[in-house]
Amino acid sequence: MTKNVGILAIDIYFPPTCVQQEALETHDGASKGKYTIGLGQDCLGFCTEVEDVISMSLTVVSSLLEKYNVDPKQIGRLEVGSETVIDKSKSIKTFLMQIFEKCGNTDIEGVDSTNACYGGTAALFNCVNWVESSSWDGRYGLVVCTDSAVYAEGPARPTGGAAAIAMLIGPDAPIVFESKFRGSHMSHVYDFYKPNLASEYPVVDGKLSQTCYLMALDSCYKTFCAKYEKSTGKQFSLSDAAYFVFHSPYNKLVQKSFARLVFNDSVRKASSIDEGAKEKLAPFSTLSGDESYQSRDLEKVSQQVAKPLFEAKVQPTTLIPKQVGNMYTASLYAAFASLLHNKNSELSGKRVILFSYGSGLTATMFSLQLHEGQQPFSLSNIATVMNVPTKLKSRHEFSPEKFVETMHLMEHRYGAKDFVTSKDCSLLAPGTYYLTEVDYMYRRFYAKKPIDGASENCSLTNGH
Amino acid sequence: MTKNVGILAIDIYFPPTCVQQEALETHDGASKGKYTIGLGQDCLGFCTEVEDVISMSLTVVSSLLEKYNVDPKQIGRLEVGSETVIDKSKSIKTFLMQIFEKCGNTDIEGVDSTNACYGGTAALFNCVNWVESSSWDGRYGLVVCTDSAVYAEGPARPTGGAAAIAMLIGPDAPIVFESKFRGSHMSHVYDFYKPNLASEYPVVDGKLSQTCYLMALDSCYKTFCAKYEKSTGKQFSLSDAAYFVFHSPYNKLVQKSFARLVFNDSVRKASSIDEGAKEKLAPFSTLSGDESYQSRDLEKVSQQVAKPLFEAKVQPTTLIPKQVGNMYTASLYAAFASLLHNKNSELSGKRVILFSYGSGLTATMFSLQLHEGQQPFSLSNIATVMNVPTKLKSRHEFSPEKFVETMHLMEHRYGAKDFVTSKDCSLLAPGTYYLTEVDYMYRRFYAKKPIDGASENCSLTNGH
Repeated sequence: MTKNVGILAIDIYFPPTCVQQEALETHDGASKGKYTIGLGQDCLGFCTEVEDVISMSLTVVSSLLEKYNVDPKQIGRLEVGSETVIDKSKSIKTFLMQIFEKCGNTDIEGVDSTNACYGGTAALFNCVNWVESSSWDGRYGLVVCTDSAVYAEGPARPTGGAAAIAMLIGPDAPIVFESKFRGSHMSHVYDFYKPNLASEYPVVDGKLSQTCYLMALDSCYKTFCAKYEKSTGKQFSLSDAAYFVFHSPYNKLVQKSFARLVFNDSVRKASSIDEGAKEKLAPFSTLSGDESYQSRDLEKVSQQVAKPLFEAKVQPTTLIPKQVGNMYTASLYAAFASLLHNKNSELSGKRVILFSYGSGLTATMFSLQLHEGQQPFSLSNIATVMNVPTKLKSRHEFSPEKFVETMHLMEHRYGAKDFVTSKDCSLLAPGTYYLTEVDYMYRRFYAKKPIDGASENCSLTNGH
Repeated sequence: MTKNVGILAIDIYFPPTCVQQEALETHDGASKGKYTIGLGQDCLGFCTEVEDVISMSLTVVSSLLEKYNVDPKQIGRLEVGSETVIDKSKSIKTFLMQIFEKCGNTDIEGVDSTNACYGGTAALFNCVNWVESSSWDGRYGLVVCTDSAVYAEGPARPTGGAAAIAMLIGPDAPIVFESKFRGSHMSHVYDFYKPNLASEYPVVDGKLSQTCYLMALDSCYKTFCAKYEKSTGKQFSLSDAAYFVFHSPYNKLVQKSFARLVFNDSVRKASSIDEGAKEKLAPFSTLSGDESYQSRDLEKVSQQVAKPLFEAKVQPTTLIPKQVGNMYTASLYAAFASLLHNKNSELSGKRVILFSYGSGLTATMFSLQLHEGQQPFSLSNIATVMNVPTKLKSRHEFSPEKFVETMHLMEHRYGAKDFVTSKDCSLLAPGTYYLTEVDYMYRRFYAKKPIDGASENCSLTNGH
């Protein structure tokens, strides 16, 4: 079997348009700190009328291939995870084929995977399994997570966001899957779903969704630990991984989640918990599951106890999710990208645990082993290519009024046909794809903003 | 690596309600033979208001587990292929988790795969790869293809259909994947898509879709042959497989497709083509690709030349698709199920080639090797369990008027909330799940028709 299969390269794209959470608080008449401290969010990125999940994924795939110098013919599998439905039948993957058809490569397996924010993780597992299977043909896999998270006016709106991430998959990777240690929890719930087909907005029960997330986390951690212990003969504790990366609908839930793992370790009497912490958490060990999810005291005490470990093991993963917001399928991998940006080569030799959650619900905790790797597929080069600081710094802040106006326009554009966009790509970075038109047959047309001031406009065709 | 991974067991479900194509011709004022000979279809199955893609998949999964005596705890991966969107975020897979949660099994990977009629094939490949990968935990995979194909009034309406198929995946299977011989063709086209999110009906360009299908077939066959030849050192011809199974939107396209492969073999000078056939097809060998797709003469001559081979290698695959119609993701596997029904143990030692097509487009040609296998996972038992003749015979024929009336009701129900169904399960077989209610929050409730006249109603819960 092929060895050390995992992630060779990553690139991330998020829109250059954002709104500050602090400004949004004031605009919405929310109490001060409701979004910035209550949700733990700094800023919210969003698509304007010239961007969507298809343009973002075209942008990030082109960028990854170019920056890591990968020939499009070398891609043998391409999978997309998304919950932003523009067409109910035609996959986003087929739109991306435009990049590969130009080069004469149409023999590329894979389609789109869907379950809320989990689709990207499903696509990632599928791609890794493909490289390890007898159907692997020696070429690379490519996984794309692309989503635009938008909510109706109300308490959920500040938890929006938008981004696309591309990950190149193959053997001898700097980011290797430890596939034997993996715990999933899947179940039938209605915490967040999109049954109103004509609207881009979900139906969401925030409180239920948070409880489901924490329950799934407990269950995945339990299964993960059991498999680890069965495989290695040793008890797993939080000390056995350098970093923990969580799907991040908003930062506060990430804080709660890590505290919940600390509470789990204290109940399990794992080695990561010192005497002082044990004492503080002991009073809660007799709570029933349900009680423990509702207990404000437990939440408070466990977060306090977890704080030093959180700073060390989670804080470095929070930059992009706090700055861009919930990116649905891209959210977990944007958190992981934040870690790679912050720690790059220091991560060599370290284990990183990821927790993926998709409402509905599907959740998995899984483990990665990191190594520096070989150029161009090295931890340090991934950090360089992603260039997170420049991307964050070059964003344009919209006023809350202009953000709301944009959301209004997007509501009308969702599912619509027979319109042209402003084609205004002045805010976009060179090399960014943008939507120009949706014709009377709902066919979508995109163009690419020229790189290096070249005047030609690399319009994509409309297929056959 | 795990050996002989493939399909261990299959079950199929289609609604007990259908309309005769001949009656539909008369009702629609179509010329005699337009649907029965022009499309090559006998009958059209459809869901009434108590069935949908979720109920059908609940039915077929329960049935498979029960009939093959598989403990739900033995399932480690469950994937769904579908293009019938009831919720844009919450996967059909999460609805199916109800069956497994009851038994305490929530550690089941996999979500839904989407691209038109191809999603089931993607799910199938993913499951097979999982069993061959380092993340396999020794349990079975389960693939479900479920779709309801409905069209607006007009020429496409008689190409509807509905079904769900479940396939159990594992090692030492009677139906083994020859994964090295596989050719895919993926590309960006608008031949059939579903951009009108509020409507269940697709936008479809029938003529374009047929050309895309045949172009993709040519391309996949070319890649398939190249990989076969690279791997075995021998030229592949149609003689190297006992049967060819095609995605079947309507039977006429299957006839054209096989004729197209015969034409390919004649151009390639492959051994399957005798002197007489070679002579008849020679005049067309100089046509350009485009010309060849448009040539009525080529279509006619190649179908005539292909007829004896078609009768031997394709005819046994056509029963269910002709009787039920296009079942989208389930269509190809319903054709394969027809072959298993017709030939069961005789297939042992034979190679079968399948061609999967999903508009948009994604297509793959792949190869299976069949062996009798061990009870209960044997070719003969699969045929017995599926029990196709009884399922076909026990259907209820609706008049075209009643069919149209049902389609009207379903149009109003699609995407709707806050209604109860008739709960009339009198036409359904015992053990069939059915929709009882969609509440004010769009939450869907299902019940199961008791088996053996038991009076209790095994209602499913609404999750947490």
